[in-house]
Amino acid sequence: MTTRQLHLNAFLMEAGHHEAAWRLPESEAGAGLDVRHYVRLAQIAEAARFDSIFFADGATVQGSGEFRIAGQLEPLTLLTAVAAATERIGLIATASTTYNDPYALARRFATVDHVSGGRAGWNIVTSATHEEAANFSLAERPLQATRYERADEFLQVAQKLWDSWADDAFVGDKERGRWGDPARIRSIDHEGRFFQVAGPLNVPRPPQGYPLLVQAGASEQGKAFAAKHAEAIFVAHQTLEQAQAFYTEIKGRAVAAGRDADHVLVLPGIVPIIGDTEAEATALARHLDDLRVPEYGLRQLAAFLEVDESELDLDAALPDHVVERTHREGFDSRSRLVIDLAQRESLTVRQLLGRLGGGRGHNVVIGTPVQVADVIETWFTQGAADGFNVMGAALPSGLEAFADTVVPILRERGLFRTEYEGTTLRDHYGLPRPANQLDLVGADVV
Amino acid sequence: MTTRQLHLNAFLMEAGHHEAAWRLPESEAGAGLDVRHYVRLAQIAEAARFDSIFFADGATVQGSGEFRIAGQLEPLTLLTAVAAATERIGLIATASTTYNDPYALARRFATVDHVSGGRAGWNIVTSATHEEAANFSLAERPLQATRYERADEFLQVAQKLWDSWADDAFVGDKERGRWGDPARIRSIDHEGRFFQVAGPLNVPRPPQGYPLLVQAGASEQGKAFAAKHAEAIFVAHQTLEQAQAFYTEIKGRAVAAGRDADHVLVLPGIVPIIGDTEAEATALARHLDDLRVPEYGLRQLAAFLEVDESELDLDAALPDHVVERTHREGFDSRSRLVIDLAQRESLTVRQLLGRLGGGRGHNVVIGTPVQVADVIETWFTQGAADGFNVMGAALPSGLEAFADTVVPILRERGLFRTEYEGTTLRDHYGLPRPANQLDLVGADVV
Ligand SMILES: Cc1cc2nc3c(=O)[nH]c(=O)nc-3n(C[C@H](O)[C@H](O)[C@H](O)COP(=O)(O)O)c2cc1C
Ligand SMILES: Cc1cc2nc3c(=O)[nH]c(=O)nc-3n(C[C@H](O)[C@H](O)[C@H](O)COP(=O)(O)O)c2cc1C
Repeated sequence: MTTRQLHLNAFLMEAGHHEAAWRLPESEAGAGLDVRHYVRLAQIAEAARFDSIFFADGATVQGSGEFRIAGQLEPLTLLTAVAAATERIGLIATASTTYNDPYALARRFATVDHVSGGRAGWNIVTSATHEEAANFSLAERPLQATRYERADEFLQVAQKLWDSWADDAFVGDKERGRWGDPARIRSIDHEGRFFQVAGPLNVPRPPQGYPLLVQAGASEQGKAFAAKHAEAIFVAHQTLEQAQAFYTEIKGRAVAAGRDADHVLVLPGIVPIIGDTEAEATALARHLDDLRVPEYGLRQLAAFLEVDESELDLDAALPDHVVERTHREGFDSRSRLVIDLAQRESLTVRQLLGRLGGGRGHNVVIGTPVQVADVIETWFTQGAADGFNVMGAALPSGLEAFADTVVPILRERGLFRTEYEGTTLRDHYGLPRPANQLDLVGADVV
Repeated sequence: MTTRQLHLNAFLMEAGHHEAAWRLPESEAGAGLDVRHYVRLAQIAEAARFDSIFFADGATVQGSGEFRIAGQLEPLTLLTAVAAATERIGLIATASTTYNDPYALARRFATVDHVSGGRAGWNIVTSATHEEAANFSLAERPLQATRYERADEFLQVAQKLWDSWADDAFVGDKERGRWGDPARIRSIDHEGRFFQVAGPLNVPRPPQGYPLLVQAGASEQGKAFAAKHAEAIFVAHQTLEQAQAFYTEIKGRAVAAGRDADHVLVLPGIVPIIGDTEAEATALARHLDDLRVPEYGLRQLAAFLEVDESELDLDAALPDHVVERTHREGFDSRSRLVIDLAQRESLTVRQLLGRLGGGRGHNVVIGTPVQVADVIETWFTQGAADGFNVMGAALPSGLEAFADTVVPILRERGLFRTEYEGTTLRDHYGLPRPANQLDLVGADVV
């Protein structure tokens, strides 16, 4: 048996995950709008044999006011362009179950899976912000519980639709003029609380059966959903202990839900800031932080915590009433992580902004390639991670540095692949191709 | 001044527009699921300097029963993959205003326009079938009038969203840390009957301002919508007289709506079946027709006319009660074209199926390259067309034959370009880039 292998996902974000990365002289300020930038990043990640690349998404303009407003290409639309320029790497895009219809979205993911030869993954989000609701004709954002109930039914419908064509439904029998086998293409007649969908889907079953199902919800409901459905989980943790606790909890919940713990991969985020020496790495981190616009960070934080900027004092701790508010219904559970960080380390708002600016709450690791590899190995071997969501502080340089200097060390230690073994995203993550549920039903009946 | 130039759009459809094309020995039966097939077709069309390619779409499985069930990749998702493999040709995809949200769809088209460098076009449809409604949680298909009212507001919202970023909103000023100019990125605060959308969009204004707006509705409401909004109109006509009447009517309506008649291009469909001699062309047409499965055609026709197969007798005319039904509310106006054809030529159902199988009601022209070019020139110069929607009966062969044999004749006659002059889809069609309406409002206010 080979040693357990690490999984690496490259989380791609404009000119980098550090909020000021676009201001570096070598950065392309409009990188997030340039498909060639993303193609290049995907090719770097593929050359290093990453499992996948990933695009986050949300249906609002990011930021506001004077300093930082970023537009973003729609990731699922982008994915086929990246597919055309790569061969093996997995392609994960975020899409919301709150602001999509299952028929249309199931079809789009099936299309990406067909076009890419089985490389599609779906980061399932439920969209927590008021701003998104206001772009989709809703007066209020739906309650968190409602969002996750809808997500659950949404996924059920999507899976039924992907299963509505048996794997052998396409026949292509020119002789007899039979293009498909009608007995192998079935309506789903879903009647639920949120959706009534007749089906069948108008695309054959995706090469992977279903796209890889990814999730990143950190609330109670989010974790319950992940334990039930997710095959890869993105998380943000600052400490090994936090990460271990989450890892143990989510694997336990998956097993309790009747699943194989190895089929639920936990991928914490890591923002590596790499230098030949520790001093060089620290200098690079400082340089990036100096480029931050504090007013921008303050505005972002205020928006995230749903308070007015005037309620936050840069040189004081977060006020109690602000902390209290984030316990209310519907709050993005990431706000808890931010508040935990501020409280654990008794940070002022200014210090907190410094910690968030680089990685939005993810684990920023500043050091030499060996130091970064050590953190990865520790988390991987100490029950905190099955792999990592690699978030280059600046892109492409941060991803290149990781690929050139950290990946070889991980290989030497026998932790990471030198070559792809399979062709699909599921192959890379060692996850099974799901059986067709409708076939199983059919088999029962016969 | 150069002579008025013809516009050519390549309507791409699986292994061809003839329903039996996939059964030809040289056809790829699963062509519709193969991105490489579409990339190849787009490259053929681009090499011949076509204005654009086009994908139709609908959110249901096509056909049913024993003989022909086709799956189809989602065209907007496909478009960026085709964009990556081409440089200049326009890329038009169909999307429904009945089963999409304006924020999400405006963003996806803006993304395709950015990724392709200004080559996106949107064929706006309102989705007339019961089957589509049943895939989107609706008990009934919406009334036709409602669908077009929604389409009208949908387009308004989309245009406001594309205009929510001024053309110069992206600044990228690294020195001052200003990524965008907040005064040039504006909410839209749309409050309408169907939609309430805050905005702004999270993608900068598309290179073309708006994607090219295409429409193909043939009903009263459809024509009213086209005259108001469409920049290119796809139509199906069997005779020069029909096409002339439509051309005159729609241009008149556009002018009445305050538009420039030259900014509304009419593109009838043509299904060219080409041979070196007329006899060869006829033999090819006969060969294709012999491959048809009559039961399939009957089922398709019955579904289209919303009657039971048993109500149609292959060797009799369409029964009166069936003709009557198509006058009812909500019927796809294309059913009128089919019925007009049957009545004008006193066709039996079997004969009607023969006429429809090749081009679904479009003008099938069987002949030598010169004969096909003659029809095109006549329609173009006699007030029936500004260009054509070229529908290869078999693909790629039908498109190749057209590009290799008909296009050179059109060039000799000075009717069609030898080189692209501009870079965007609007450039190819000679259509202006729309001004930013919000800028104009702003200018008024200042
Ligand atoms: C690495 C990572 C990536 C995420 N990407 C997105 C995203 O693209 N869009 C989004 O709306 N939320 C994203 N989230 C947020 C989660 O999906 C989730 O909404 C958030 O953690 C709040 O959890 P909850 O919904 O369970 O409260 C991401 C979270 C993490 C950790
Ligand atoms: C060339 C051509 C292409 C069309 N493509 C589509 C399509 O992709 N999807 C669709 O739903 N309807 C399509 N239609 C149908 C029209 O959009 C329209 O629904 C139909 O002509 C009925 O018109 P009405 O809606 O005004 O009744 C097409 C029509 C033509 C002539």
